[in-house]
Order: sequence, then C-alpha cells, then structure tokens
Amino acid sequence: MYENMITIDRASSESMQKQIRRQFAIAIINRNLPLHKPLPSIRKLAAELNVSLNTLILAYAALKQDGFIFSKDRSGYYINPNIYPEFGGFDKFPELISKKRENSFDFKRYFKNHTYDLPRITKPEDCLVRFKYPFICGLVDPDLFPIANWRECLRDSVNVVEVKNWAADFSNADDPMLIEQLIQRVLSKRGVMAHPSEVLITVGGQQALFIAIKMLLRRKGKLGVENPGYPDVANIALMESISVKPLPIDRYGLKITEQLLECKSIFVTPSHQFPSTVTMPLRRRKSLLKLSQNNDIFIIEDDHEAEISFNETPPPALKALDQYGNVIYTGSLSKSLLPGLRIGYIVADSEFIKEAKALRHHLIRHPAVNNQRSVALFLERGYFDRFLSRLTREYKYRSNIMSESLDHFLPQCSTPPSYGGGSFWVKLNKKIDTELLQQKCMPEGVYFEPGVSMFIDDIKNNYLRLGYSSIKSSLINEGISVLAKNVDQLLQ
Amino acid sequence: MYENMITIDRASSESMQKQIRRQFAIAIINRNLPLHKPLPSIRKLAAELNVSLNTLILAYAALKQDGFIFSKDRSGYYINPNIYPEFGGFDKFPELISKKRENSFDFKRYFKNHTYDLPRITKPEDCLVRFKYPFICGLVDPDLFPIANWRECLRDSVNVVEVKNWAADFSNADDPMLIEQLIQRVLSKRGVMAHPSEVLITVGGQQALFIAIKMLLRRKGKLGVENPGYPDVANIALMESISVKPLPIDRYGLKITEQLLECKSIFVTPSHQFPSTVTMPLRRRKSLLKLSQNNDIFIIEDDHEAEISFNETPPPALKALDQYGNVIYTGSLSKSLLPGLRIGYIVADSEFIKEAKALRHHLIRHPAVNNQRSVALFLERGYFDRFLSRLTREYKYRSNIMSESLDHFLPQCSTPPSYGGGSFWVKLNKKIDTELLQQKCMPEGVYFEPGVSMFIDDIKNNYLRLGYSSIKSSLINEGISVLAKNVDQLLQ
Repeated sequence: MYENMITIDRASSESMQKQIRRQFAIAIINRNLPLHKPLPSIRKLAAELNVSLNTLILAYAALKQDGFIFSKDRSGYYINPNIYPEFGGFDKFPELISKKRENSFDFKRYFKNHTYDLPRITKPEDCLVRFKYPFICGLVDPDLFPIANWRECLRDSVNVVEVKNWAADFSNADDPMLIEQLIQRVLSKRGVMAHPSEVLITVGGQQALFIAIKMLLRRKGKLGVENPGYPDVANIALMESISVKPLPIDRYGLKITEQLLECKSIFVTPSHQFPSTVTMPLRRRKSLLKLSQNNDIFIIEDDHEAEISFNETPPPALKALDQYGNVIYTGSLSKSLLPGLRIGYIVADSEFIKEAKALRHHLIRHPAVNNQRSVALFLERGYFDRFLSRLTREYKYRSNIMSESLDHFLPQCSTPPSYGGGSFWVKLNKKIDTELLQQKCMPEGVYFEPGVSMFIDDIKNNYLRLGYSSIKSSLINEGISVLAKNVDQLLQ
Repeated sequence: MYENMITIDRASSESMQKQIRRQFAIAIINRNLPLHKPLPSIRKLAAELNVSLNTLILAYAALKQDGFIFSKDRSGYYINPNIYPEFGGFDKFPELISKKRENSFDFKRYFKNHTYDLPRITKPEDCLVRFKYPFICGLVDPDLFPIANWRECLRDSVNVVEVKNWAADFSNADDPMLIEQLIQRVLSKRGVMAHPSEVLITVGGQQALFIAIKMLLRRKGKLGVENPGYPDVANIALMESISVKPLPIDRYGLKITEQLLECKSIFVTPSHQFPSTVTMPLRRRKSLLKLSQNNDIFIIEDDHEAEISFNETPPPALKALDQYGNVIYTGSLSKSLLPGLRIGYIVADSEFIKEAKALRHHLIRHPAVNNQRSVALFLERGYFDRFLSRLTREYKYRSNIMSESLDHFLPQCSTPPSYGGGSFWVKLNKKIDTELLQQKCMPEGVYFEPGVSMFIDDIKNNYLRLGYSSIKSSLINEGISVLAKNVDQLLQ
C-alpha cells in the first residue's frame, strides 16, 4: 500500500528523508491514512521503499516533532488527531498545503467563461434538521415511508439468481419487471398505454429531461419553456447551446398563443404546473396537441406530481391523447418514492427510445440494476400503491391546514387552485422581496423557496413556494404565523 | 384506474362502444392490464366512464368475440392469454397495432443524420448462459462474489437513519463515507492522495469519462486517443462535436511523439492499456506528464483494471505523480465489484470537481444514495479487499492456463506481456478476419470480441480480445482448442 503512496525520486535534490516526510504529511492532512491504525513499522516500510532504516527513523522522528504522529509504547506510531480542524488543528500547516498547490493549473479561470454552475434551486443540506418549520419542496417525509416493506424488497432482490444478472453489464439492461410494473401500475393511471419497447429507465427525472432535450434539439431550434417554470430545463438548454423561449402561463397552465409556433420543442408540466401548481384542463390539452402536431413541434411532457392528486384526478396525460407520437413523456418515482433512489423514465415512440438508449449508453451505460429490481418488487407487491394512498391522504390533510392557515394569517396573499402535489405557490404584496423575506425567516426556523429563480424573464420578486411534504401538520399553523409576522414587518 | 386509460371523445364519429373496445384491445396488446386479475365489472366501469350499461355490455361482448377476453362464471371477465406471442397469438391483430402507428411522426428519419447509435462493443445479452466458452471481457464471475457479505452491507444501509438521509434529494449528496473509503482503500493503493473535495462519485466509469471530456473540450480542441483504444471515448467526442486524433501505441503503451502536441486533451490507459493490456513504465509516465504540463495539455487517465494486478504491481498512477493538476483521473469499481451497481469516480483539482458536480446536477442530480452507502460499508468492512485478493488469485491462475493454452494451440499468435486485468489481446495471422472467425466460432459455443471496433484508424482485422474473467478455468483449454481449430480452417 505504501510503496505507491510514497514515491521516492532518487535523482531529486531533496533528501529521501525529506521526501518521505513531506509525502506522509500531505497524506495525513488529506486524510488518506486511517486515524486509529498504527503506521507501518520502520523495518517493514524501509524494506518496501528500499531505503535504509536510518532514513525512516529520521523521517518518523521529524513527523513526530511536527505533531503529525505520536508513538505508543510497543504498538508503534499513530496519527495525531489533534492536527485536524475538528480537534482545533490544521491551521498550523498552511505552508504544506500551499506547497502542493503552488504552480498548479488554474481551473477556476478555465471554467470562468463556460461554467456549468448555473443558478438553480438549492436547499441547505441539513434543511430537514436545521429548520423547525421546513416548508421544503420535493422531499418526502421519511416517517411516512414503509421501511419494513422496502427492506423486504431489497432482501428479495439479492438472491443468487439476481446477482448473476447484475454481474453482467448489459448496455440495454432495463429490468423487464420494472418496465412491466411501471406500465401497469404507474403509467396506466395516467392513461398512458405503453409497449415495453416504448419505455426507457433513467437516473431520475433529471436524466429523462436531459436526454429528451439533447435528442430533440440541435443548435438551430428553440426550446419553449413555461414562465415561471422549472429552471433546470432552461439550464440544460443553455449547457447544450440551445436557445430558450419563455412562454406565458395563466391559471390553466401554458397559454396557447402564436409564440408557440416559434419553438421546435416545448417543455410543459400540464398536471401540476411547476411552480404554480395549476392543472391544464382537457380542452386546452387537446388544443396544445393539435397545434403541436399540425406544426411538427415536439412536446416534452413532465407529468409532475400527477400521482399525488386529491380532490380531483387530473385529466389524462398529453401522452395518453397522443396518436401522432410527438409527445415525449418524462416522469420519476422520486417525488413519491425516495428521491435518493433516482429512478425515472421516458415514454415515447419505440424509434425514439432506441436512440435514447444509445445516447444513455454513452452517458452512463444504464441505471443501477439492483435498484431497478428492488423498485420493481416494491411496485409488484402493491406497496407503492399503498404508500401512495397514505401519502395522498396525509398531503390532503396538510394541504387543508395550509390553506386555512394562509387564509387566516396572510389574507392578502393569493394562491392558485391546486388539486394535489405537495406545495403552494404564493403571491405576496408587490412590495415584498421574498429573498429578503427568506433571510429574515431562516433564523426563526422557517424555510421556504423564493420564487425568483423560477422566472426566465419578466422576473417577479414577490412569489414564494411553500412545500408541505416535509413539515409535520401540527407545526404548519405556527410556521405560517412566523412567516406572516415577518411579511408584516417588511410592509411597515 | 380505468377512467384515465379509456378516454371517451363524445364528439367523435366513432361510437362510444367502439372507442371503448378499441382502447381495451390496445391496452391488452400492450400488456397494460394484469393477466390474471378480473377486468372491472360492467356496472362499476359504466359508472366510472359515465356511459350506459348497455354500451359496456356490447363493448365487452365484442372483445370476447375477438378473442381478447373470456368470461368465468361469477368471477367476471379475464384477459385471454392465448393472444400473446408466447402462447402462439398476437399475429391475429396486426390491423389494431398498425392502426395505432399509422400517420405517426417518423423518428427513424429524424435521427438518421445525427444518430447516437454509434458502433460500439456489444455483447449478446444472454452471453453468460448461451456460450459454453465465454471468453467475454468486463464481466465478473458471479460465483466469486461474496454475496453474504454484500447482503449484510445492504441490510445495514437500510436503517431508519439512512432512509431519512435518502429521503433528501441533495444535489451535492456524495456519501462522505464512500468518499473516505475510496480515498483510503482504493486510491491510496494507486498512490493517489486525494482530499475529499477532490473526488466526485459518478454512475460508473462511463459517466466519469463523459463528464471529463465534456468539461475539458470545446469544439475547437482535439481529443487524443490511443489507437487501438476504447471506442466509447471516441464516440463521446463525436456526440459532442469534438474531433479525435488517433495516437499510436507500442508495447509500453501510448508513444510519446510530436503528434501529442496537436491535442488539447489526451485520453490514456497507462496501467493496462485498452485493449492491448500493456503497462506504461514509470519513465514514460514521467515523460508524458512533463510534455503535457509544459504544453498545458490535459490528461484523462483511466486507471483501467489496475486493481487486479498480479506478477507485478503497476507503477503509481499518473495522477499520483501530478503536482500540476492537469491529470483528471477516472475509475470505477465495476470491473472488480459488480458492473450492475454503477459506481465510478473522478479525482481532480477541487475547482474541477466543483464544476463537475454542477454539470452532474444537470445530467442526473447524483448517483443513487443507497448504493453509495452499501458500497461504502462493503469497503469499510474489508470485504472489498478480501474479494479483490480472491479475484486476483483466481485471475492469475486462469491467466496462466490461458497463456499455456495459447502457446500450445495457437503457437503462431502473439500476445503482449500483461501484469493483470482479465483479458488477452491476441494477434493472429494477417489473413484472418476475426469477425468472420467469430461467426464461425459462436455456433460451437466460443464467444470472444473481434478487435476491429477498437481501431480508430489504420484498422486491422486480425486482432481479438479473449477475456477470462467469466470462463471457468476447467473449460479454457477446450475453448482455445475450438478457437484454434477454426483459425486453422480459415487458413486452409
């Protein structure tokens, strides 16, 4: 192990002792060595590196004097934990760290004019534990997840036969069982009737969108996006040098206007428009289909949160009404299952899927095979359906509390009608800047998403997204009252 | 469920009965309905669709007469399994299938001039069971995998605390435990000393390569690739409109020539050159580094199969010798763990990794969180190291048999020296076309990869790759003798 970590350059002007000492120090600072295990004995390492015992004795002694290591009687040398920042150390050795970095290639400058670090919705990593009132969107309440059922599916997916299948690295390896279950239990509820050759598994909904956009658009064509809309889609277009055309929405979702004709493809979220949560009625869906089909415009349909619907079922997906094949349907189990599992899908014409599979091969080969099987079992055994109805029941309950609470504490705000999902899109007084409001609310334990990053142009600062998928129902009222108090303070 | 699957257009000239009948037939053909469960009762479905009982009675009767469904006394209507191809059916209803397809968008034509379906190494999906002598590359012998240990790690990764973590969908969610284990147990063996901020987890080695190439190259710069080399890298460049420069190799790997200076980045596999398996000596590694650093050329280093080394440890990775930061190191646990798990990684300057993470966010968000934790546990508990030494021992044994067998049965062929990995690169008589040879050998149970697709230009037809990671040692001699017999027949 050490013979590769420590490289001795016998032609160097630096002594071998110093080379060993410096490389050990860097390895320790970078945490490349286990903290509570003894370092190799002097005798053993000297043989491995083919240096004299004396060289190593001196190197270890210097490391000890510098505070990197200490010796325990008989059991040898150990790393001194006090050098690490969590034990108050690390600052002592800036010269060593900077030595490694001096004269190195300047990647920061290299990426400056073509960065992928585009503005996007980010949540603090510790948002679920840090905030008492987490009005966070897109996270599932872990307490609602049937962990025992999931564990059972995991266990059953790891039998000898299955492992033999994973050992293979098939570029076309979508689990037929998962495809079948998606068709029967997920897609059919949205009216989408798909043949197995028309479905592709992706790493979450994000990859489904990336593949669809990359395949449909070349540099010449424009991608139409809802405004406000999902910022990651505009970002993907930017990455791929595709221009974006913002399209207006109203309380029935994407408006059918002449502007649509300028687009080669249109990204749309008809079931619960992102972020406004409104549902496109059947009549408008048909108009959109007709217009797009008559003009050979592709539709990328993200059937966002359609599976979590209460009060009223949304109309069938655009894909369900599409006989022509210009609708590329993308979806994900992340919102309703666990986001961390990253299982998404594309439904489209089998020729499209064939190409998408070839593209996916070069991007990632295929999504992890074991997760495909575990999720397939979870669907097949009905656990998913049961979990979904539990989630829907709970979300409906929370949604009602949210609605009443907003009416009571923020009567001047307005929210569009919504038939499900897990969030509200709230419009506040024009004078309110919701990014400022967020800064004021966070120290009081309230977290929400300011709406500004969802606008492509015609940017408005007085919108916010309030998620209720992660907040306990008993805390909603209190959280909204804290939010309202801060709104009032900003208005004074 | 059915209200969305069956959409009734009351304005259509087609009768409601016929609409229901047609849509049910399509759903049944497409396997959208479970085979052994009763269809909804006439009364219930009529209410759901808001049509008269009589309409549904007629629709079901027609479906029954067409052979799609049959009735069981009292328990209702069921799908007739005899319509499916495995029961001899399906051909009866081409008009229904074609009806759905008529007048649909022609994706085949749309992708014709810009296809992602590029020539690549493909294995038959059933290659492990179909061939008696599977000289297949890149698959792990499932019988060697410690399935009990893996099951334990899976189980322990699914406790309540972990599931709470997965519920979050963090765009930066690389498992810190996996990063730490990779640094300590995998990278350190290659001499690579990395700080956690210098490591990114990817969906297999394939995604690591895609990200590295996309980030380093714009349309103006050339990507140098070894010739013969890994075809997927040239394919990614083609997809991203980057031109490729084939670079010659010899028995010490990539040759250091003036041609390298034409490249903005160079892809190289120094530890076991793909496909020739040769190892680049330390001296040449240093020359390559010096040349690339003096000319600001990026190196993408794929440390292909370095973890499975016998006879001799390969020299430290280029990344281990790189103080300048121009080496982007990519790797994967797929060759040594299970390919189906799709865990790969990039090691590079922390500014590079920051950008790579932003790009990854738009591609897939992040790799599945649960697999990251299971693999981290597998590494932490030492199961990976133990598995690796078992694998190495077994591969060494097989490699010796292979070598002796080739000497005996094909004395006129030549193979480069190799210190590990899982395959041989065999050069046959110039008159042999190995694609033809493959066609002759497959019916006799011998599978290998013809070498032609690994050449970028200066294409040679008389090379083949013989993998031994999946073939039982007791069958190697027999397999090689069958291969040799076919070679002799072609030469006559």
